[in-house]
This record gives sequence, structure tokens and C-alpha cells, in this order.
Amino acid sequence: MKKLWQKKTGGKLHPALEVYTVGDDWKLDEFLLPYDLQASLAHAKMLHKIGILTQQELADLTRGLDELRKLHAQGKLTLTIEDEDCHTRIENELVARVGDAGKKIHTGRSRNDQVLVALRLLMKDKLGRLVPAVRVLAEQFRSLAKKYEWVPLPGYTHTQQAMLSSLGLWFGAFAEALEDDAKLLDAITSHLDQNPLGSAAGYGVSLPLDREFTARLLGFRKVQNNTIYCQNSRGKFESLTLEGLVQIMLTLSRFAADMLFFTSRECDYFIASDAIVTGSSIMPQKRNLDPLEILRGQTTVLTANHALVRNLTVGLISGYHRDLQLLKKSLLESLLIAEKSVEVVSIVLENIQPDIQTIESKIQPDIFAADVANDLVQTKGISFRDAYQQALQELKGRKIDLQKNLKSKISPGAPGNLKFDR
Amino acid sequence: MKKLWQKKTGGKLHPALEVYTVGDDWKLDEFLLPYDLQASLAHAKMLHKIGILTQQELADLTRGLDELRKLHAQGKLTLTIEDEDCHTRIENELVARVGDAGKKIHTGRSRNDQVLVALRLLMKDKLGRLVPAVRVLAEQFRSLAKKYEWVPLPGYTHTQQAMLSSLGLWFGAFAEALEDDAKLLDAITSHLDQNPLGSAAGYGVSLPLDREFTARLLGFRKVQNNTIYCQNSRGKFESLTLEGLVQIMLTLSRFAADMLFFTSRECDYFIASDAIVTGSSIMPQKRNLDPLEILRGQTTVLTANHALVRNLTVGLISGYHRDLQLLKKSLLESLLIAEKSVEVVSIVLENIQPDIQTIESKIQPDIFAADVANDLVQTKGISFRDAYQQALQELKGRKIDLQKNLKSKISPGAPGNLKFDR
Amino acid sequence: MKKLWQKKTGGKLHPALEVYTVGDDWKLDEFLLPYDLQASLAHAKMLHKIGILTQQELADLTRGLDELRKLHAQGKLTLTIEDEDCHTRIENELVARVGDAGKKIHTGRSRNDQVLVALRLLMKDKLGRLVPAVRVLAEQFRSLAKKYEWVPLPGYTHTQQAMLSSLGLWFGAFAEALEDDAKLLDAITSHLDQNPLGSAAGYGVSLPLDREFTARLLGFRKVQNNTIYCQNSRGKFESLTLEGLVQIMLTLSRFAADMLFFTSRECDYFIASDAIVTGSSIMPQKRNLDPLEILRGQTTVLTANHALVRNLTVGLISGYHRDLQLLKKSLLESLLIAEKSVEVVSIVLENIQPDIQTIESKIQPDIFAADVANDLVQTKGISFRDAYQQALQELKGRKIDLQKNLKSKISPGAPGNLKFDR
Amino acid sequence: MKKLWQKKTGGKLHPALEVYTVGDDWKLDEFLLPYDLQASLAHAKMLHKIGILTQQELADLTRGLDELRKLHAQGKLTLTIEDEDCHTRIENELVARVGDAGKKIHTGRSRNDQVLVALRLLMKDKLGRLVPAVRVLAEQFRSLAKKYEWVPLPGYTHTQQAMLSSLGLWFGAFAEALEDDAKLLDAITSHLDQNPLGSAAGYGVSLPLDREFTARLLGFRKVQNNTIYCQNSRGKFESLTLEGLVQIMLTLSRFAADMLFFTSRECDYFIASDAIVTGSSIMPQKRNLDPLEILRGQTTVLTANHALVRNLTVGLISGYHRDLQLLKKSLLESLLIAEKSVEVVSIVLENIQPDIQTIESKIQPDIFAADVANDLVQTKGISFRDAYQQALQELKGRKIDLQKNLKSKISPGAPGNLKFDR
Repeated sequence: MKKLWQKKTGGKLHPALEVYTVGDDWKLDEFLLPYDLQASLAHAKMLHKIGILTQQELADLTRGLDELRKLHAQGKLTLTIEDEDCHTRIENELVARVGDAGKKIHTGRSRNDQVLVALRLLMKDKLGRLVPAVRVLAEQFRSLAKKYEWVPLPGYTHTQQAMLSSLGLWFGAFAEALEDDAKLLDAITSHLDQNPLGSAAGYGVSLPLDREFTARLLGFRKVQNNTIYCQNSRGKFESLTLEGLVQIMLTLSRFAADMLFFTSRECDYFIASDAIVTGSSIMPQKRNLDPLEILRGQTTVLTANHALVRNLTVGLISGYHRDLQLLKKSLLESLLIAEKSVEVVSIVLENIQPDIQTIESKIQPDIFAADVANDLVQTKGISFRDAYQQALQELKGRKIDLQKNLKSKISPGAPGNLKFDR
Repeated sequence: MKKLWQKKTGGKLHPALEVYTVGDDWKLDEFLLPYDLQASLAHAKMLHKIGILTQQELADLTRGLDELRKLHAQGKLTLTIEDEDCHTRIENELVARVGDAGKKIHTGRSRNDQVLVALRLLMKDKLGRLVPAVRVLAEQFRSLAKKYEWVPLPGYTHTQQAMLSSLGLWFGAFAEALEDDAKLLDAITSHLDQNPLGSAAGYGVSLPLDREFTARLLGFRKVQNNTIYCQNSRGKFESLTLEGLVQIMLTLSRFAADMLFFTSRECDYFIASDAIVTGSSIMPQKRNLDPLEILRGQTTVLTANHALVRNLTVGLISGYHRDLQLLKKSLLESLLIAEKSVEVVSIVLENIQPDIQTIESKIQPDIFAADVANDLVQTKGISFRDAYQQALQELKGRKIDLQKNLKSKISPGAPGNLKFDR
Repeated sequence: MKKLWQKKTGGKLHPALEVYTVGDDWKLDEFLLPYDLQASLAHAKMLHKIGILTQQELADLTRGLDELRKLHAQGKLTLTIEDEDCHTRIENELVARVGDAGKKIHTGRSRNDQVLVALRLLMKDKLGRLVPAVRVLAEQFRSLAKKYEWVPLPGYTHTQQAMLSSLGLWFGAFAEALEDDAKLLDAITSHLDQNPLGSAAGYGVSLPLDREFTARLLGFRKVQNNTIYCQNSRGKFESLTLEGLVQIMLTLSRFAADMLFFTSRECDYFIASDAIVTGSSIMPQKRNLDPLEILRGQTTVLTANHALVRNLTVGLISGYHRDLQLLKKSLLESLLIAEKSVEVVSIVLENIQPDIQTIESKIQPDIFAADVANDLVQTKGISFRDAYQQALQELKGRKIDLQKNLKSKISPGAPGNLKFDR
Repeated sequence: MKKLWQKKTGGKLHPALEVYTVGDDWKLDEFLLPYDLQASLAHAKMLHKIGILTQQELADLTRGLDELRKLHAQGKLTLTIEDEDCHTRIENELVARVGDAGKKIHTGRSRNDQVLVALRLLMKDKLGRLVPAVRVLAEQFRSLAKKYEWVPLPGYTHTQQAMLSSLGLWFGAFAEALEDDAKLLDAITSHLDQNPLGSAAGYGVSLPLDREFTARLLGFRKVQNNTIYCQNSRGKFESLTLEGLVQIMLTLSRFAADMLFFTSRECDYFIASDAIVTGSSIMPQKRNLDPLEILRGQTTVLTANHALVRNLTVGLISGYHRDLQLLKKSLLESLLIAEKSVEVVSIVLENIQPDIQTIESKIQPDIFAADVANDLVQTKGISFRDAYQQALQELKGRKIDLQKNLKSKISPGAPGNLKFDR
């Protein structure tokens, strides 16, 4: 494949350096290609609008891009390392398919803004699909919270039983967290919803590009104006996207950590169906929740990816550098992990049953000490700090009704007042 | 000082373990104390509203808290390691100052939600002060962009001269980036603007706390409802705050990297006044921009702090753990660094003068090759890809007028069309 | 205080920039100061040896440095922010105390190699003290392993009971890990045991410095030769030191994670004395192992510090940059945390008692399934994979003798064959 | 493919969870497979030695393993996701090829120690190949240092010309750094050269496994004794390996950063051949050193991988967890990047030529100010601090002979005394 930058006279890049420099980029670019095609079409329409392309040339390019789009959808447009990247491949394909018009598609743009716009479209698209999935999962948690609203559960601090909690409170915590996470993803998506196409290599061009027009065609909220800022936001916008993904993973991994503890034989609070456990090659009794361990681990993978995307850019001067290519893998991998992790938790939720009797049997009596203290405050009028000192003594011999205790927790957001309707 | 959790019968925590466990927390809590006082007052008012405190008790507590607020403002309320944390100190001070009412302040709350609400108030307050400072700095960059709109500057990619840029474009890039950063900070502040007070230890209490009331008193947008979610958002909200701060640092460190390159003797594009340079103990000629090197380094400190705040929480089950105490340092340090870094860049901007003659002398002729190619496209109607191959040849002997070239870059956001009014 | 680099004619650094640039460095340099004094004395002796200093000047400097050493030991040589760093303070103090000889101490050196050598001495010293402490802790674990050699304990994989383990095996695991960690620290110390003094600003000087002589005086294994490499190893050697510290923390945090699980009420395998637990401000029953939670959290602090020390240097060109100043805090903090964490675990070990009856009562019968499978292999000659399928069935009704089972685990390093004497 | 842990009665893992949990592991295991075969053969020999396998069974297994080894070498043993991992595939293949003996290979081992030993062998092998490559590269740098011993080069601090340096000093810095890195890798390799095979699932087995025997067969320095420690060293040994790799990358990325600065048009110190530069799709004049930008970026990838491998394990209790599977990718990727980066730098060195005239023309006169100060110390007997104040004045009008200046830098390790023979 012909490189877009090959000099007529020039020697070739050393093959080992080419392999090293391109790395996995050609593979990753398969994910980017449809967005590049989409942006290329918008760019062509704009070039026609400002008189650079004739009607015929636009028609040729439209046809060529459409062919490529269909080929890709059929899985027939796979890149090779020789393609270098999807931008080069698309231009070479267009030249082969529609001739001279193909050579004109790159007018007024550079691979630098081409990759920016393709990544921006990809991020918007992926986040746009993730948000509703997160909301559906939140709803699933909320349903379980309602279903098990009055099932008691030890509430922990320091991995020690602290106060009585409930499955309603516990499931509800993840519902509210995920709703918040979804709102945040919306805000993040809105922040990066800016059109970088037309910034070219980072310094603009001498053509009256209509960037508002391509922004409209591509559904961007606005044009990202300053051409250097377009380049310099590479890494920044990926970082922000990663923050949104990490927030989701932090919610899910907290659920995973709870489940892994709650399904230890020492707790046994849930019965997990065969569909979510694996076994051991040597211990036939094992029923391990490996998917949730992987989810916990992948959370750390995402935080590492997040650290990577910004550390890659610190210290670089303004403008494009090849280092930025390495942002792609972290971004794509993280988007995929987050999407799949949401699905995994949804499946896990469908395959667990609380073992209510076991849960109740494991609740420690002294978990009610703070309640007794509060009770002393209200019934005997003594100060909390004094009641605190007497509570353990008072507790002896008391028989606590779990349901009654739960229902007494009437502060907003507490087990007895979950406020599902807020 | 008496610990809030000391048992009457209990032995004491080993002194070495106390020092280890408390760590720097007592020092850091000095920053948290005024917010804790603010939230304590709101809590007391609410306790009175729901009938737990008498009018007299509220008056006593109000007086006590006010005294403490004044003492702190005068720098006379300094913590010691024996205080353990600001929450303990406040309660002990109140008991000493107003007696029994002091022992009642902790009714219906826990240090777990006390620290949450104090940190939330602190984050809101600090971000609320940072945003206008960022906007002022953006304006400062914009003024310079206008002032030097037509001063040429090499535009770089790969640390190589790429195309002609301008000081207008370059300063303008930071103006737009900072405006965007400020908007993001606003969105982030709004996300965490939720009242966790009243979630107690994470499992609510059996009192009809009026959390909407404290939310209003403290200026929160809404109540953070689910009590477990309140606890589980620890680390998540710090992470989000850090993301906002890192975004600012990424903008500023890009400026720093540019400046460090542009003020190398090889470039010499700016004259830096004595106010922003340091020297060497051994080389009398040195004029180093140390403040910007520190800023670049502090950006990495913030990304490390950011990694820390989430890695601290991954793997923990729901509810409070002492590990979370270690979030404070990273958060406070990062807020301070970001605030100071904004100030540093502002001072640097006031102390640099572009050396226009030197800049112009360093511009490489072949920086115009892409322009020539575009010119060929427009004037001779040949395709961009063919023009690209001829451009270097065409360039020979051409004399490029820098001003004319800049003005020809009319694509939106480019040097000739900066669109300050957008 | 006079800066070493102040020009006679020069304006001053903007006060806000000075505060920002110096940061905490003046405070951190108090830890560095004694090593700087030590290296300064060696440098002075060497300057005398090569004829730069007279006998009298050396005597003056020796006296001055000795005074400073004593003052520091008495806590009377505290730095202020105006000192900028310990190097400047020392030179200023020497000039004030011994006059012209003080102005000569900086001959043939720069703060760039001065800080390198002081840090190198500090790392060597701190690691040299840490290693024996780690070995003593390993011995403490080994003693417990021997004491409780035959006390059964569930062995876990995936936080699920897997096979029978023992306290002997468990304590022994940490003994062997810490011995290995200590060996690694020795190797690391040896690697960085190289003298950078005499590399000056990174490019040498025109004086015949005797670097072998200062190496001998300071106890270095060898001279670090190339002067640029001396500078470029900044960050690399800190990183290596951090790796050694992280290795220890990984061992200790694994112990902490085990203990936090084993002391949950669901396990209750250990009785913890009051000396190692804290309570809650609201729940009087709580006995939390906060010191081990802090230790777990500090492990993450160290991994963040480690990430920081190398990310600070990536992208910098050769030679000193002010960014490197920010390495100090991470290094000093991490050395302190590791040292204290070793002490914490030692204290914890002295304050826990296994509750053997409880442990035995929590062992699940099917933990022996793999043993039954192996038994079938040996006694019935069937293949392991077939035996695996029959084991759970075979297990029903079998009564397993815990001691016998432990003693049957005769593979080297297993509970029945701990090989303390290896 | 049959899972090693499939229950006869059990339902299957949900397909989406299987895909999620296995992830890329099956692909990564292709790299692990030959080491697993090697360890499996040693395990089989040992089982025969202790009487578990008959001579015939060993012969069968040996044949089977040899067939697999050959198939793999021919690229014909590729894993699929259904295989789950290489351990399962090998056992299934053996059963298919040699029948009942295949079912016996897993006696006395678990996938938990199987993966440990395979990874250990892989790390040893890869590091063992890397060390000589690093030493060869060091030699290449040393040759260049000798060749260009007296070619001047500005020496920088703070990205500012500081003192005169030389290509000899500069190339020599990387030679010494790489030699040190290689020594460190040797020490690291020695540390992890311990046999974990025979630790089974982490709790040993009731068979008299001869772990010394397998250690000898596999070339391990010693047996890693305690079976829990074997498991708990997962992550620790990967971390140590990564530290070694990061150290190399830190050396190479410093070279890359220098080269990227030195080949900017502002410096132009080197002529780079076509074999190591790429171009731009829009700017025909561009000659970018992309391979070195990728190398700089990959350094950050490795530090992120390093952070990942330990953060994955912090907070886990003792014993195997599925999270640990995620260590593989980081390890394998990092080993590959380090190996390739060494090759890249070697190729770059073969394709650069210093442009001595340009270098000399860019040296700033005041770079000699410190030398003048030292000269005043030696010739006029004034103190360094006073000489420092006069040097810039003295410098005016002086003509500095570059060669003479370089040769005057006689302190050991300085340009005039590189001590190649040390």
C-alpha cells in the first residue's frame, strides 16, 4: 500500500521500524474506520459546498465511500499492517475506485484532524450506547431493591458488621450510583461534542472551510474553534471519557467486591446459579464467581488506562506527536470493558437468589448497639455520648425484631425510608 | 483528648499504631474544620427543627460553634495528633464550652457522614473559587491572542516546524482550552453538589432527620439519598474533582512545555524577565524557567494523586473503611496545586515579551510547502495528492510574505480567522 | 538568605513563584541535610587532597561542618523557605562561620551532584536500616509458624475455602516472602551504591577531582562514572528503591487483607487485643483493625509514588530539570511508610491470638474433596481426572481428621512439610 | 473443548460470561504454551520418579508432549476461546493422544502452580534473551562514544545550554546506563529464578513431590518453598520484572527525548536517513522521527503496565484469584515492547550522522561561564563564589577553543576523561 507521505525520491522506512511504529494501530483502526468514512463524506459534501469539488466528484466520492461502508459492514474491509492506518487505506481505496476525485478528498484536511474527528464520533457513539445500558441496569437494581425492600442484611464498615441494613438499601445504592454515573456520562458526552474537523494539521488551511456545515452534518453540538486547541485536546477528551468509564467501573466493582464477600462460605448470603460460577481443575467442590473477579481486575485495568492517556501527553509541546497514537488502544479497550461489564452485572443479577434464612442467622446481636443508644436518647432524654457508653450493657437480653428495626430507620435514604419515588 | 470511641473498660490503642493510623490526618483536618463547623451548625438547626434539641441547646451549640469558627479564623484552633481528627476536636470543644448540648450534637450523625459533608463543602468551595480564576486566566490569554494576532510563529508537529502559526493562534488555543476547562469544572461541581449529611454511618438512623432542610441550609442542589451510596461515593467524587483539576493542569502544562521549548536558546522566541527565572549555583549565565518545570512536574503529581484516589477504593466492600482517610491528602494537595498553578501562569504571562525578529528569523522556508500544495490545487486545479508531490520543487525561489500567508489561513479557527467573537 | 545563583544586577524572582517553585522542598531538605554535610566534608577533604584547599581551609570547613552537624542533631538547624534548599543553607552557614573557606566549598561541584550524592547516601542509609527490620519481622512470622505449625486454617482461593491450610503454612508464607524481600533490598542497595559526587552540573569540571577518594570516604562501592549518566539516573534509582519498598508493602498488605477478612465476625479466627483496634463514634460494639486498613491504603500510596517518580522523568531530555525536585517527597514519604509499616505488623503480631476452636468450626467439609481425589488416585489407581469426578460423592459421610490431613500434606512447602530448616 | 472443572451435573457458564472471563487469555496463552509443555514434561518425569506414573505412562506422555511441542513450533497448535487456557488444551490434547496417561498428568498439580511455573520460565527466558541485546546496544553506544569522543555538543540543564559537553560524553552516558540496566536485569532474573511447581493450588498435596528434581530439570536456582508464598508472589515477580524493563525504557526514552530535540530544525545536530523518518500526509517537507516518539510513548505504556500489575493484587487475600489472569497481558506486552525498543534504538544509531559544523555553530558563548569561574579560582586564587560573580564579565571577548575546553574537563567521567577502560 502506498503511504500518503511517501516521497518520490525517498528511501523507505526500515521494515522493523515500520512494524514498531504502526504497532497495533492498523487493527485498532478497524473500529475507527466507519467513523472515518462518515466524516469523510461530510468533508466531501463541504468541499463541494465551497466549490472545491464538482457535483460529479462529490457523486463519485459518495459512491466510493458508500461502497466502503458496505464492505466494512460485511466484514470485507479488513486492514493490514501495510495500510498503516484507516485514513491511508480509505484514500487509496477511493483513488482506486473513483480515480481523481479520490485524490481530492484530502484537500483541506490532514490525518491529524481526520483521526480527531473519527475518534470524537466514536466516543460519542459508544458513550451514547452505554448510557441507556447503564440506566437499564440501574432499573434492574431498583427492581431488586423494591422486591427485597424488607430483607435484612448486615451493614458493614471496616469489613465488620456495623448496623442493620437491608437488601433494599444495598441494591438501591447501586441503582442510585448508576443513575448518577449515567448523568455524568451525559455531561461528559456533551463536553466532547465538538467538531475538530477542519483544523487540518493543527494550523488551519487557506480554504474557506465551512466547519459549521460539517458540524451539522455530523451532529456535533458546536465547532471546536481554535485549530491548535483541537490538537491539544487529544488526550484530554480521552481522559474525560475514561473518567466517566472509571466511575461506572467503580460502582460495578464495589458490587463485585460485596458479592465476592457475600458469597464466601463464611457469609453464604446468596445462592449463585451454575450460569455465573466456574470450578477448579483440582478441587471439585469449588464454585467461584470468576466473572466478578475479572470485573474487579478490569476496574484496575481502566484506572491504569486512564493514567496512561494523560501521562502520554504531559510534557509534549503543542501539536500532533506520534505518541498520541498510543491513546487509541486504551480508549477502545476501556469502552469495550465498560460496556461488557455492565452486561456481566446484569446477568449476575439474574442468577443470584438471596438466602434469607442464612442472612438472618449471621446477623450479630451487637449490630443494634447504636440503635439502642439512639433509643436511650429519645426515650430517656440522655445525651448521645452518654447513651453510647450504656448501649452494650442495655443490649444484653434484648430481643431485636429485624423487621421492626428496619422499619424504624426512617431517616431519608435509610432502610425504612428508601424513597424510591424521589 | 478523649476519643469519641473510647470504651470505658477498654485498653488504649498502641501509641505507635495511633501515630501510624492518624498519620497526617490531624494536620489536613485543619483545612476541613471550617466546613465541619458549618455542617455542624446546620445539623444542630435540623435537630432542633425535628425536636431533638431544645431552643436553649441550639442556642448553646450555635454560640459554641461560632466561637470555634472565630478561633479558627484567627488561627487559634490548631489541631494536635491527640485530637485524632477535626470531628472529635469539635465535639470535645463543644462539650467543654456548652456542656450537655455538646454531647447531643452527634445525635443522628456519624463521623462517616460528617467527613463526607465537610469534604463535599470543601470541594464545592474550592472549585467555586477556582472556576473564576481559570476564566480570568483564559481572558488574559485571549487578550494576548488579540494583541499578537498577526505575529507569526512556527507551528509544530512532532517537535518539527510544520506550518506557519501565529502568536494569536497559540495564545488563543489556551484561552479556548481554559474556557472549556472552566465549563467542565462547573459540570463537575454540579455533579457532586449533593448533601450526604444524614446518612450517618452509612445505614441511616431511627430519627426523622430532615435532610432537605440541611441541604437548603448548606446550599446543596439536592439530597444524596441512599445512605450506602453516600458512603460509596467517597473516592468517586474525589476522583471526579481530580479529573477536573487534571484537565486544567494538562492545559497549563502544555503551555509550560511550549514555553520551555520556545525559551531554549535554540528558539529564543520570548524574553523572560528576571521575575520568572532562576539561576544556577555554578553557571552564572543560566536563566531557567523553573516555575514552569515545577508546573509540568506537578501535573504528573496530580495524575498520580488521581490514580491514587480510585485505586484506594477498588476492591473494598461497601461502607466506610479507614483506607479512605488517605484520600484527603491527595485531594487537598491537588486543589492547592491547581489553584497556585493558575496563578503562576498568569504571572508568567505578565513577564514574557515575544522577540518578533528572532521568531521570524527562525521560520524555515519549507514550512510553506503544504500551502504551496493547496495553492496548486486552487490555481491549477490539480489534485491535492499530485500537488503534494510538486510542492517542494515549486517552493524553491518563492519568497513568502509572512503576513499575507497568515491572512490567507481563512479556515475557521486558523491564524487568519481566529473568530474571537464566536 | 542569599541565593547561590543571585546575579548582582538581577531582579528577584516573583515571591509567589518562589513559594511555588520551592514548595515543600525546604522542609524535605531537613531530612537530607545530614547527608549533605557528610558529603560536603568528603568533598572538602578531596579538594584539599588535590591541592584546591589549604590545610587551614580544610580545618575551617571541617570545624564548620561539624558545628552544623551538631546543631542539626540537636534540632537547632531548621530550614526556612528563604533558604531555598539545604545546599544553599549549608554554604551560607559556612561562609558566615568560617569565612572565605566557605566560599570555596562549592569548587568543582554543583547543587546538581550535591543533591544526587545526598540522596544516594540517604537511600543507602534508610534501606540499610530497613533490611534488618524486615529480617526481624520475618523471624517473628517464622516463630509463629513454628508455634502454630499444626493449627488448621481454611486455605482460600477466590475468597472461597479451597483446601485445608494451617497457621504454620500461613505465617510461614510471610516469613519466606519477607526474607526474599530483604534479599531483594540488598541487591537494590548494591545497585545504587555508586558515587555521583564529582559529576558537577552533569558535565564535569576542569579540575582533577579524585572521585575514587570521595567514594571511599563515603563508603560507596564504586564511582558512577559518566557525568551525564549520574544526572540521568535521577528518578531511575528512586524508582528502583520504590520497587523494593513496594515489594515489602505487597507482602505486608497481603497479610493485612488476610487479617481484615479473618477478623470479620463471619470468620472470627483471631482475637485482637485492645492495643490494635479502634472503635466507632456511633457504634459502641465496633472493634476495627484500622492500622491494617491504613497499611493496605498506604500500599496504594506507595504504588502511586512509584508511578510518579518515573512519570516525572519520561520525556525529559538529558540533564537536570527542576521537575526532579518533586521526586524527593515521594521517596522520603515512601521510605518512612515502609519502615513504619514493618513496625505496625510486628505490633499486630504481638496482639493477636488465634481462636482455634472457632477456626475448626468454620472449616467446610468439602474442603477435602481434592484430597479424596488424590486418595483415589493413590489407593485405587484411577486417573486424577476420573477421581475428580467421584470425589464429592466419596466425601459424603467421611469424617476427616484435621491433624491427620495436615500431616498428610507432605509435598515440600505444604502444611505437613514446611521445611523450616531449608 | 471440555473444561477441566466441568461438573457432570452442572449447568454451563453463561456464554457471555465465558467470553468476558476468558477475555484475551486464550490468545496470550499461545506465548505461554511452550513453557507449559516444558514444565509438564518435568512434572511427568517427577511423577514417574516418585512412582505415580509407570515407565510406559511417562513414555506416552513424553511422546504426547513432544508432538505438541513440534506442532506449536510449526504454528499448528493455535488456541481458541473454547480452550479457555493452554493448561486445559494441553491436558485435553494429551488425553486425546495418549489416553489414560493424559488423565494422570494433572496429579499433584493445579492450574494455579502450572501457570506460575510457565510464567516463571517465560520471564527467565525472555529476560535471558534481553540482557545480551541490552549489552550489545551498550557496546554500540560505546563505539559511537569513542568515535565521536572529541566532537563538541552543548550540554543542557533545564533545556538550556549549560556547559560544553561532547558526543563522546553523551553516547557514553547511554552505554553506562545500559550496562547498569543489564546488571540489574541479571539480579532481577536471579531473584525470580525459583521453582513454584509443586505448590499445587497453593496448599500442597498429599504426595511426596520431588520439587528439587523438577527445579533441576527446569534449570531453576532453587525451590520456592512455602506453597502460599508461591501463590502470593504472583504479581510481585511480574512487578519486579516490569521494574527491570521500565529501567531500560527510561534509559532509551531519555535517548529518544534527546534525539527528538536534537533533530528539531532549531538544533539540527543530526542528519537522519530516510530509514528512520516518516512524513506527513499534508506537509511534504516533514521528516519526523516517529519511531522515537512511539518509543517515548511506550515507556509510559510500560509504567502504566507496571502500576497495573501491583494494583491488581493490593487488597486481595492470600491465594489465587481470577483477577491475576489480567497480569499476563501487561507482562507479555511489556517484554515485547522492551525487546523491540532495544532493536529500534540500535537501528536508529545506525542511521544518524552528527552534523558537526551545525553543532559547533549553535554553541552559545556563555556556555563557558562556569569554566571561566573555575579558571579564576585556579589562576587567581579567588573563591568560587566570587569568581562566579565575575565570570560573565571576564567571558566577553574571550575566544574559546572547543577542543581545548573539552580536553580541560579532566574530572573522571567528564568529556576530557571519559574513562572508557574503567
